[in-house]
Amino acid sequence: MKSNLDLVNETDNFPYYEDNPEKYTKLRSSYWELHLRGGSGPRGYMPQYVFEKFFEMPWVAAWDMDFGRKTLTPGPGCQEDIIRQELEQAREKGVFEVLKTGWRNELYPIYGHNDPSEKTISMERAGSALFGINSYGVHMTVYLNTTEGMKIWVPRRTKNKQTYGGYLDNTVAGGLCTGEQPFECMIRECAEEASLPEHLVRSNAKPCGTVSYIHIRDERAGGETGLVQPECQHVYDMEVGADVIPKPCDNEVEDFYLLTVKQVQEALAEGQFKPNCALVLLDFFVRHGILKGENEPDYIEIVSRLHRKMPFPTS
Amino acid sequence: MKSNLDLVNETDNFPYYEDNPEKYTKLRSSYWELHLRGGSGPRGYMPQYVFEKFFEMPWVAAWDMDFGRKTLTPGPGCQEDIIRQELEQAREKGVFEVLKTGWRNELYPIYGHNDPSEKTISMERAGSALFGINSYGVHMTVYLNTTEGMKIWVPRRTKNKQTYGGYLDNTVAGGLCTGEQPFECMIRECAEEASLPEHLVRSNAKPCGTVSYIHIRDERAGGETGLVQPECQHVYDMEVGADVIPKPCDNEVEDFYLLTVKQVQEALAEGQFKPNCALVLLDFFVRHGILKGENEPDYIEIVSRLHRKMPFPTS
Repeated sequence: MKSNLDLVNETDNFPYYEDNPEKYTKLRSSYWELHLRGGSGPRGYMPQYVFEKFFEMPWVAAWDMDFGRKTLTPGPGCQEDIIRQELEQAREKGVFEVLKTGWRNELYPIYGHNDPSEKTISMERAGSALFGINSYGVHMTVYLNTTEGMKIWVPRRTKNKQTYGGYLDNTVAGGLCTGEQPFECMIRECAEEASLPEHLVRSNAKPCGTVSYIHIRDERAGGETGLVQPECQHVYDMEVGADVIPKPCDNEVEDFYLLTVKQVQEALAEGQFKPNCALVLLDFFVRHGILKGENEPDYIEIVSRLHRKMPFPTS
Repeated sequence: MKSNLDLVNETDNFPYYEDNPEKYTKLRSSYWELHLRGGSGPRGYMPQYVFEKFFEMPWVAAWDMDFGRKTLTPGPGCQEDIIRQELEQAREKGVFEVLKTGWRNELYPIYGHNDPSEKTISMERAGSALFGINSYGVHMTVYLNTTEGMKIWVPRRTKNKQTYGGYLDNTVAGGLCTGEQPFECMIRECAEEASLPEHLVRSNAKPCGTVSYIHIRDERAGGETGLVQPECQHVYDMEVGADVIPKPCDNEVEDFYLLTVKQVQEALAEGQFKPNCALVLLDFFVRHGILKGENEPDYIEIVSRLHRKMPFPTS
């Protein structure tokens, strides 16, 4: 059985400098840093073996590489185009699993610092994990208060989904593309994944913060392992009445279950939830006073870890 | 006018390694680390000048010092007694302002890691900032929903309070002593500071997480400056009806005002709130959907910074 801290450790598994400076520094220096021209500081971390596979291909000239500092910067020309061409060619040649199976024609933003010269550029979603850039999403917990206590609507992912097939999930979740507002994205995902009507969501869904972490991918995510995945999820709560029943709509979800808090906690401890969704539920439990200092020995550590400060610009 | 991120930067003003490794490392290496015998990792950061003032006194023999690594460990004997004697003698000799004016006869815990050999020991509250240990507290926001929108009960600290006299504060707040449970502490503080009866608080106050940060003290806190103050606040919300009116009881609070969210936001921007209380209000605004991705450009950064991971054990 997994403790709540185990669940956090499983997803937020990139080391922290202050916990162990040597371990952190060793791992960090094993990655190449993605930089953007005219910007300051890294925007992503790429494992050495990914770097080697990419840059044994013939379009190396379009990139500036510093082998001492292990930095990688798109060369002269449109940076967005250079990144796109890189990914498209790698996809055509079948170099990476995550590009073969995960290509979505969706663009993810790479934010700059507040300096106006650092404008946001975009990258195909499937490539984000290879470059280890921050990605953004929305996750909502739909719940109701009954005479038997609080219950939560929990979907099961379809068995044949590429990533975490068959795992339990948050009621609604999705990725945030470049230029998309989180609340509008949530409304779209609610319709697509759970058949929840726009007017209901627009008047009842409540933004409640973010959950953020840095994950190093293993085989359960599908495709390459060791990829760095820093993620920031905008979290929403929506309390509904007994008459609101989410229903699968697209092929993402197999079924929805209405579970008590105890049932959700048991499923979490058994590892039945998609790991990052477990973190959104822990945050929900903290905000609703279900987890507290009196019943969770790792309370303060858990609350901090659910809100990791990202090493890259986030706005 | 201060932005919300300015308010965060003002309190959580200890640098982050990933933002600027050089700056962080330079500052960190200027501090002595408090260690405990049999424990692993630091428990507090002490500025060089504090170290020199302490250890020009005659009881140096009771401490093990490593001048290369800048670590400071209580020597043979009861560690808690050694720390207490150190602080009592420094107080008698008038070496430090914070001991002269801030001595409270309240003990703060220094937690160990989960290893059972690392048991929790205590330190007089007034000494915690000199050693830079984690301190813990409780902060509650009492609010009501009216036809004109949400309103928040906001106290003004008495003008002659040693620290931040005359500043606005959270409805109720207090420090958590060794062995005290956060909820029970909150109930006690509610009676002492705001005349809120136990039965009301016990049935209506809701734990909602923690706010944590590392502050480097300036002159507004009174006493020595440059002291490191890592703090974890257990935060509570309590919604009340119009019939509940907090009233000053001890000498901490001058008066309570019932302010609209807009009035609170204006007072925050004007710097009228005690700085760490501003962070608790920002967390309240995030959890209640008042601040969100759509209206706060630094939303993700702010949410992370309100929940800093502490460099010391917290449970």
